[in-house]
Formats: sequence, structure tokens, C-alpha cells
Amino acid sequence: MRGLTMPKSMIRVGVNGYGVIGKRVADAVTVQKDMMLIGVSDVVADWRIKMATKRKIPIYCSQPDRLEEMKRGVEVAGSLNDLLSEVDVVVDCAPGKIGAKNKPTYEKAGVKAVFQGGEKHEVTGVSFVAQCNYNESLGKPMTRVVSCNTTALCRVLGGLHKRHGLAKARVVIVRRAVDVWESGHTGIMNTLVPEMGVSHHAPDVKSVLHDLDIVSMAAKGSHNLLHLHFAIVQPRTPLTKEDVVATLKQEPRLVFVKGADGVEGLNSVFELARDLGRPRGDLYEIPVWEDGIMTIGNEIYLLWSTPNESNVVPENIDAIRSITSTETDWRKSVDETDKALGVVKSLY
Amino acid sequence: MRGLTMPKSMIRVGVNGYGVIGKRVADAVTVQKDMMLIGVSDVVADWRIKMATKRKIPIYCSQPDRLEEMKRGVEVAGSLNDLLSEVDVVVDCAPGKIGAKNKPTYEKAGVKAVFQGGEKHEVTGVSFVAQCNYNESLGKPMTRVVSCNTTALCRVLGGLHKRHGLAKARVVIVRRAVDVWESGHTGIMNTLVPEMGVSHHAPDVKSVLHDLDIVSMAAKGSHNLLHLHFAIVQPRTPLTKEDVVATLKQEPRLVFVKGADGVEGLNSVFELARDLGRPRGDLYEIPVWEDGIMTIGNEIYLLWSTPNESNVVPENIDAIRSITSTETDWRKSVDETDKALGVVKSLY
Repeated sequence: MRGLTMPKSMIRVGVNGYGVIGKRVADAVTVQKDMMLIGVSDVVADWRIKMATKRKIPIYCSQPDRLEEMKRGVEVAGSLNDLLSEVDVVVDCAPGKIGAKNKPTYEKAGVKAVFQGGEKHEVTGVSFVAQCNYNESLGKPMTRVVSCNTTALCRVLGGLHKRHGLAKARVVIVRRAVDVWESGHTGIMNTLVPEMGVSHHAPDVKSVLHDLDIVSMAAKGSHNLLHLHFAIVQPRTPLTKEDVVATLKQEPRLVFVKGADGVEGLNSVFELARDLGRPRGDLYEIPVWEDGIMTIGNEIYLLWSTPNESNVVPENIDAIRSITSTETDWRKSVDETDKALGVVKSLY
Repeated sequence: MRGLTMPKSMIRVGVNGYGVIGKRVADAVTVQKDMMLIGVSDVVADWRIKMATKRKIPIYCSQPDRLEEMKRGVEVAGSLNDLLSEVDVVVDCAPGKIGAKNKPTYEKAGVKAVFQGGEKHEVTGVSFVAQCNYNESLGKPMTRVVSCNTTALCRVLGGLHKRHGLAKARVVIVRRAVDVWESGHTGIMNTLVPEMGVSHHAPDVKSVLHDLDIVSMAAKGSHNLLHLHFAIVQPRTPLTKEDVVATLKQEPRLVFVKGADGVEGLNSVFELARDLGRPRGDLYEIPVWEDGIMTIGNEIYLLWSTPNESNVVPENIDAIRSITSTETDWRKSVDETDKALGVVKSLY
């Protein structure tokens, strides 16, 4: 396809791994004016990958030893290396830690790469949240979109931090047990399982917001719909609730919801998202409870839900533009992505 | 029974409401050397109250209009007023807010009363956690044992506060959705439902630890086993982790568990409790994760589980001694209660 005529600005994108994130990134690439989805690569040919066939997306095989089996299920366009030879950027959406193993393959193919938060920061040396540090990844051979939790923390806390300066942020996260599609050896359980010590989220946030004094604790919950975040932050100078709301309203990809409007919990957020009519009922925004915001003394209390399957999808699109330097203004990239995906400033 | 000869020190106790707390308090009264359970009162005669019959506990009827129906299910010894005429103290374990309605009945009968945390502090004007403020209830006509969550907060934070002084405490609570026995209109749900604003726990803690600067946030979880508490506290002078552990080891009704020992979550605590061989697998102690304790800068991070069905049971026993002034030394009462109930300093 490299030989075909296409607008010079078209970024040719491949997605390696067609799971929870991969399939969403593939769809999001498809609706961008400056990007073209060349194909997706995976190692199985079950119902999930067959959905790509329905979307007429060329399917490649990431592992030579899986090729014969995959061919029995779907039409295979070629190997991962074949896909890499056709693209400018690969978005690695393989399961956590597999991305690091894929890195040499991408480097050898001379293809830029976007990794996910399941990989360590060290894999790329640079991590990415569009509205926080877009420029750090500009022109780099690769970058890493941080996890859903870290992305949410960076959007909310980063917004307050860059405008007002936060002396510190203390966070408690209750994660969903598993993703909705999962039913394997893990599952919803009747328990809460806390992490001992500082959860990995705080150091991960620092890979984007380098100077933020943040400590996080976390537990795995019983449910499978969205994460819940509690934050207690101290701005360097006292802020009113109105200041906090006004600041966060300026930030992209944050929306306010209210308990008083009946948005009582993660279940309401999930249902609200399905009513928006987007593919898969996805939420790209972080819904912050406006009536959950409190300012007490020199502290701000915040409460939000993190759409774990989908909030990093727009980030992946912006990361592609950043590493290819096809857009150097973070705001323009974010606006373009959000317009294409239908990101809103108010859910209802 | 007032006419019978019995040791002068025997406190005659009745329990009104034979539910989650009531049945446990009744059993706990039975094993105290200085108390005698005269009977329990309720408004139904289903399997729950029939369990009292199996234990040969006289059953009274709390509501005249339920008498005939109750009689069809169990042998009824008399009315609530009949029970009150036989006792020195009634422990009100009726559902939340019903206790307040029962208060005039107890006053009219001239019987001292212990209420539960489902009632407002104003109902009694004094609230109770044995190791924190036993003396405040001494000789009072009534007191209120605070809720399971508040009791846990008071035990852990109170221990640190009284020995070191806490500049502030910030808490996040993830509550169990429902009690294990419940299956009615509420139930386990696939969500987390946060409270907007300060949860009721912080003001409730202040009804016992009057000068503690505490703010709490809370959410209802999906599970039905125990609550999970996260706390971030600032002592007035910095403490090491060893200081914190040493301090909490001195406190009664706290035990340490470790994630490293395989106590991974609320489920492990629940199972551990069942292995102890106590009635109903009850835990009276607050299991604090020792390897969950962190000291970072001037802050201490703590993590514990709250046995919602049972941790207030010893408190009810001590409250009886406090309001009857039969024991004026809180430590002696606590030791006596704990010996009778088999409270331990280490679960495994």
C-alpha cells in the first residue's frame, strides 16, 4: 500500500492486539481525517477477531506458529512484519508486558510505536497524556499511553496542578475486578483486595506529571464496571469549590455529573454512557461528581469514575500525532481527536 | 424474676431486636460472669427468632399488634413491657431510627438503655467506644454504641491520637453492600455508589473523639463481606512505622494481619474468622494490615477491615457496665469482656 497515492498527511496505522483497547483504537483511527487503518494483528481467530472481519479490517498474524490456526477462522492478510512494512505507526495493544517483547520487532521494522500502560515507563522512556505532556513525545520513535487510572489522575490532578500548583495529592482507587468481557480464571468476587504499600499509580502519574507530590492506595473491587477514584489534594493557595469547578471545566475530556441528578454510582455512569449512542457505549471523558467536590480548610476533595475500557482511546490517537510530529500543537490534536470521536463537555 | 435471689452484682439484661447485632449481643451477655440474659424481644417469629428458642432464650413481643402472629410461631413469654419490668438494662438492637421511638418506653419503665449506631447521637447525648470514652457514659441513663465503621475508626485512630496526638485524619471507607443474611429489595450490585460530600462517619467519630480533625468519604461496594477502610493521618510529631505498630499493639481489640501471609482481602479475613471457631465466625477485633502501614513524610497510611456484623458486640457489653456503674475502670471491663468472648491479640 506504500506504493498507492494517498494524501501526504495520511498517517498509516497498524494495531497489534485486537482486545479491549486495540479494537477501540482501531475504530478511533478509522474516523480520523489524517489517519488510515492499514490492519490489525492478533494471535487468535475467535469471535473477537471475527468482529474485525465484519468491519472489513485486514487481519494479520502476530505469531508465525499461530498462523495455520488463525487461517482456519479468518482470512489472514499476512504476518505482523507484513503489516509493519505497510505502516508509519503501530499501536501496540498486546496484553501487559508483551509490548516490551514486541519492541525489537517494531524497531527492526523502522516503525514508530505507541505502547499502553501495561508496559513499564522504561520501555519507551517517555509516557503520554495528551493534555499534560504532549510535547515530550514529539518526534520520538515511541511513547507509552499510561493506564486508564493514571490517565484519569493526570487529567484531573494535572488540570489543577498546572493552573494552581498542588502541594500534594493523596488518592484512593477502587478498581473494577475484571473487564466486562472476561470470564476466565479471574472474575467478579465477593471481596475487596487492597494493595499493600503505595499502589503503582502514584509513580506512574509522576512519569507524566513529574513534579507532583502524589501518594496512592488502591484496592481491587468486586464489580466489573469502571474504577472509582477518591482524591484529597492541597493546592499551594486555597481554592473555593467554584475555582475548582471553573478550572476543571477548562480541561478537555472531563465532564461533570451530579449525584443529585441521579448519577448515583458507577452503574449510572455506565448506563449513561450507553445512552450516548457511541460505539460499545464508550466514554472517553472522565465523569467527575460535581456535588462530590468539597473544599475543607486548605484541602480539596474530589470523586470521579474512570472508564477503564475507553478513556485512553483518544490518548492513543494524539500519541500517534505526537510521535509522528504531524501536529505539534497539543490542543489542536486533542480538538481534532475529540471532534472525530464526539467527545462532549456535558453528558446530559 | 426481680423477686428471685441472685448474686447482687448480676446485671439483668434484655435485648430488644433479635437481628444481626441483637442475636450476637444476646449470646455475648450470656457468657459474661456478671450478667444474665432475661430475654429477647422482637416483632416476628421466623427462622431467626426460632434460633433464640433453640438457645432457650425467653422471647417477648415488642409490638402488641404482632403478638397473635408471633404466638403462632414461637412461645411468647410476654410483652416488651413485661421484659422491661424484669431487667436493669435493655440493649436496643432494633433497626436504625426505631430505637429513638423505643426510648420513651424504656424511660417510662425506668430501665437503662444501650442504643446502636443506627440512632443519632442526640437520642442519648452520649456515644460510646469502650477504649476511647468509657467514662463519659458512667452512670448515665442511656448511651449509644457507635456503628461498626465508627467503632473501628475510633479504635485505630483513637489509639494513635491519645498517645501521639493526630493533627488530622482523612479516611476513605468502602462499605459492604448488604449484610450476608439479606436478600430483600437491596442486594449485591455490580457497582460502587459513592456518597456526595463528607460521609456521616467523620462527625460520628467526633461524638467519641471530640477533638479529632477528621474528614471521611465513603462508597457502598458490591460485596457483602466486611468494610474496607483507608486512612491517611498526620501525627503532630513524625512517627516511624515501628512507632505506629507498637502503639496499635497496645490497643485492645486490634489485631495485625499481613498481605504477605496471604491475607489478601476481605474474603481472606472472613475465612480466617470462620477458622477461629467462634459463634457465627464472628470477629470482634479490627484486623489492620501490618504491611499496609506506610509512613511517608509526616503522614501515616493505614488499611484495615471492619467486621460489620460483630465488632460492636464487646462494646455493647462494656456499655452495659458503664451505664450501670458496675465497673468504673474501662480497662477492667474490656479485659473481662474480651476474656469471656475469647478476643485475641493475634488471629493466626
